[in-house]
Amino acid sequence: MDFLPPALTALIQELGRLPGMGPKSANRLAFHLLRTQKAAVDRLSVALAGLHEGVGFCKTCAFISAGDQCPICADPRRDDSILCVVEEPTDVIAIERTGEFRGRYHVLLGAISPMDGVGPGEIRVEELLERLRGGLTREVILATDGDIEGEATAAYLAQVVDRLGQGIGVTRLARGLPMGGELEYADELTIARALSGRRPL
Amino acid sequence: MDFLPPALTALIQELGRLPGMGPKSANRLAFHLLRTQKAAVDRLSVALAGLHEGVGFCKTCAFISAGDQCPICADPRRDDSILCVVEEPTDVIAIERTGEFRGRYHVLLGAISPMDGVGPGEIRVEELLERLRGGLTREVILATDGDIEGEATAAYLAQVVDRLGQGIGVTRLARGLPMGGELEYADELTIARALSGRRPL
Repeated sequence: MDFLPPALTALIQELGRLPGMGPKSANRLAFHLLRTQKAAVDRLSVALAGLHEGVGFCKTCAFISAGDQCPICADPRRDDSILCVVEEPTDVIAIERTGEFRGRYHVLLGAISPMDGVGPGEIRVEELLERLRGGLTREVILATDGDIEGEATAAYLAQVVDRLGQGIGVTRLARGLPMGGELEYADELTIARALSGRRPL
Repeated sequence: MDFLPPALTALIQELGRLPGMGPKSANRLAFHLLRTQKAAVDRLSVALAGLHEGVGFCKTCAFISAGDQCPICADPRRDDSILCVVEEPTDVIAIERTGEFRGRYHVLLGAISPMDGVGPGEIRVEELLERLRGGLTREVILATDGDIEGEATAAYLAQVVDRLGQGIGVTRLARGLPMGGELEYADELTIARALSGRRPL
């Protein structure tokens, strides 16, 4: 496409590097932006340029934050006795969206995965133990993913928390059929888990 | 999500305005960009900022161009006797990609659509007739889309070109089964068109 203006090919190239964006989608998006008012495109450009300056990680929980401490860690009304351990900052957002959790978070920034060379030293386990040694936490909720890495991470963390010998309770999020989901469309593993974890009404 | 850094929510908001980008995709893309090296995000930002300055429309054919005249109109080796009329600049790219066409283009920047209040005066019909009056064109290929608007535009243009009385030939792109396509999966209209347009081997 050497007959296209360089400013357009440059944009198509950069858009093509985004996840899930093939050459055709990048082309279509670039042409859409070309028809979009310059002011709107400029707003997107400015938002991108300011992203890394304006966003860092909380020094306590590693959730994303504009300053050294995120609003959740800085909130004195949150319950210090319950600590929810998740893999990624996006998991914090998912749980906050429910409005059901009033404790604190700890983001591991990853999960243990020997296949990818990620051991306990590569994720924020030491920082977690340091917080637990502080003595405020009575329960740790292991809210890592339900995949192999998430389960392995949860199993490992349950051990090391137990080894602290502070009598901290360790729980895991319940597994079962999603709310509103039809039994017919659930996978075998989920149904099996829902059966073995059945509860009296 | 008032606990997210303003720099991040601003980006999510702007990304959410892009076509085909729901709130979840915008979130996911923003978090991806957060994990991406700052230099790469900055390149995208700069490419966006430079888009409108660096890209305009060719004064002759209305294809996108860095200057007043696009490289295709400026190319002295192209055949002035054949003019291919398309709806959008992206159609020019699609045809150029084949490498089979060596004539000139005329981009209408739209199609006639009475339902949307788009008449012949709203698209570049007058500019087309002006070029044809120049006397170089022997054939006009009407390569508008195969939908109602495209067909209506082609029918209208065939009339006005004929009315010029310069004996300019008018053709339309062939319709039929796509190359490599299986008969079984083609829609009825396409099969019917392929049947009525069948040609001797």
